[in-house]
Amino acid sequence: MKTSSSVTFTDCSELLNAILQDYFSKSLHKAQTISPYYGQLWEELSRLAGVGGKKLRPKMSLLAYQALGGNDLQAVLPVAASLELLHVGVLIHDDIIDRDYMRYGVDNIAGGYKKLYEPIIKNDAERLHFAHSAAILAGDLLISGAYQLTLESTLEPSMVLEVQRLLSKSVFEVVGGELIDTESAFRELGDIKAETVAIYKTASYSFIAPLLIGAVMAQASAEDQAYLRLFAENLGVAFQLRDDVIGVFGDEVQTGKSTTGDIREGKRTFMVEQFYQFASDEDKKSFEKYFGNQNVTSDEVDIVKGLLVSSGALAGTEEAIARYEVKAHSALDSLGLEAEYAEQFKKLIIKATRRDK
Amino acid sequence: MKTSSSVTFTDCSELLNAILQDYFSKSLHKAQTISPYYGQLWEELSRLAGVGGKKLRPKMSLLAYQALGGNDLQAVLPVAASLELLHVGVLIHDDIIDRDYMRYGVDNIAGGYKKLYEPIIKNDAERLHFAHSAAILAGDLLISGAYQLTLESTLEPSMVLEVQRLLSKSVFEVVGGELIDTESAFRELGDIKAETVAIYKTASYSFIAPLLIGAVMAQASAEDQAYLRLFAENLGVAFQLRDDVIGVFGDEVQTGKSTTGDIREGKRTFMVEQFYQFASDEDKKSFEKYFGNQNVTSDEVDIVKGLLVSSGALAGTEEAIARYEVKAHSALDSLGLEAEYAEQFKKLIIKATRRDK
Repeated sequence: MKTSSSVTFTDCSELLNAILQDYFSKSLHKAQTISPYYGQLWEELSRLAGVGGKKLRPKMSLLAYQALGGNDLQAVLPVAASLELLHVGVLIHDDIIDRDYMRYGVDNIAGGYKKLYEPIIKNDAERLHFAHSAAILAGDLLISGAYQLTLESTLEPSMVLEVQRLLSKSVFEVVGGELIDTESAFRELGDIKAETVAIYKTASYSFIAPLLIGAVMAQASAEDQAYLRLFAENLGVAFQLRDDVIGVFGDEVQTGKSTTGDIREGKRTFMVEQFYQFASDEDKKSFEKYFGNQNVTSDEVDIVKGLLVSSGALAGTEEAIARYEVKAHSALDSLGLEAEYAEQFKKLIIKATRRDK
Repeated sequence: MKTSSSVTFTDCSELLNAILQDYFSKSLHKAQTISPYYGQLWEELSRLAGVGGKKLRPKMSLLAYQALGGNDLQAVLPVAASLELLHVGVLIHDDIIDRDYMRYGVDNIAGGYKKLYEPIIKNDAERLHFAHSAAILAGDLLISGAYQLTLESTLEPSMVLEVQRLLSKSVFEVVGGELIDTESAFRELGDIKAETVAIYKTASYSFIAPLLIGAVMAQASAEDQAYLRLFAENLGVAFQLRDDVIGVFGDEVQTGKSTTGDIREGKRTFMVEQFYQFASDEDKKSFEKYFGNQNVTSDEVDIVKGLLVSSGALAGTEEAIARYEVKAHSALDSLGLEAEYAEQFKKLIIKATRRDK
């Protein structure tokens, strides 16, 4: 199927879902020929990826592809879908590292195995270790699966290799981002900059890789690729900074997650860096009484929030988001896209930076 | 560099080492531009892979390539080397699952991080979790890195994709093998067959993938590929069965590892399956007193060994190894290789099945 007309995000959803469903059902079938227990792991993977995300990464990739002149949607769909496999694979390993057992409002792989094996492995520590083991293996499958799915594309082989170069770069960067994010908890504040984490953990594989892969497949010029990269990086960092603000000041009903978690864990966000830059020594002392304290009360959370506001940390973060937003817009202007596509990219900026959940 | 003359395993070593060193030093350099802490992870990876293995998988791949008529060694070296990255990546994750902190006689990634962070993370459980997290990420890097390194090959792009298909199949299979091997500890004996585990956990990515990838790169006929696959599978299973025998009856000085470990852990090998097939109910009862008992004494280990001998389980395993060996030889004969190469493949069989360490 060749298409020269633009395909909206909604149309893409179905096409992407079809590819992913096909991938999971074939894998499940093959796994079952090895062992029903291996089949079970693929059932869990399929369940998680099925309820899963909004497939923003594949959709952004398809948007960039079309915006930059690509018109063989069918050929690039497997590549776009591979970004979702990579994403879920990375999330599964992230969740082990963060000791989270839920994702998308349901059990993740480790969470699923923990429940499934309650009747089988009586010892809690043993069961948890087995659940983590299954999740390690599941993540491996999808990281490898991302490369595997690009092989389904009918693009020129040399183009598929080009795409894989970007894919492997994004794995390299997201792993670095994840490592230093985890490591920052054990290091002096400011030793690992929140902006560096945002670039590598968030912007790299969630924005830069999807958009650039789309552009490369559309054979965009080096100049356009450079502008798109700039757009993606600024958008990605703005997205992360907004995420940090929502993590503390967001509405729990809207976001569906606790807004005390980041304070309890002492998450070192850009906003916290701003606080340490602006606050008085006295305010820092009050802050440290509650920040990173697992047993903080809701009144104390309010004190922390108050300090983030009064110190100017929140305002400083909002200013930074606005700066990144301006840079993203400027890169977008330089791209000189058709109005229809420029509009969709602008919507992307608004979605990423002005959301409240 | 084109070469039409055969290159021995020794020559290959240097060429492979050069590619791997280049890969690690470039990655380390890039990681350091992100953060010195990310650089540290690559230093650990480089240390582990450097002391590492005998690079048997890359060497087997090169052997198959040359034996089946391939003569552009330089073009295929990165692909062969990628098998080593995959291997080390899989081992790093395996070790987390098996709670092992040593590999190749040195600290593995988790073991290295455990020591490195002693002065930094005081809480033992926290430090262990961080060490596991670093090891999860390190394994991800090398699994993705295996695909990445194939991109360095100067083979036709379509051939690189062909190779990746085999690579992704081997990841799919080794993960399945690893899962069911781990799972078998919680299941009825015989529910998960040791031979199935041997095929997927051992033969698949350690023998089938390396040899087939070599053959495919040499553009071997479908018939030759089928014989080579048969050779590899039988060789791989024989290798695993020999490993199980050595794990119990091996000489600790020769093997450098404990020969009570498998008994203490209650490892469900083919030999143990044979025991349950042959032994009397009374012998099974004695066996179960000690097998899988962490506190077993050396006298009790001798009782277990005695039961494995008297029941015929050891002899049955030796017979099975001999059967697989015959099948491997027969597949090799069907391949009709030049004498020089046939000889090298025969040496491979002897190395895999008659070794005592």
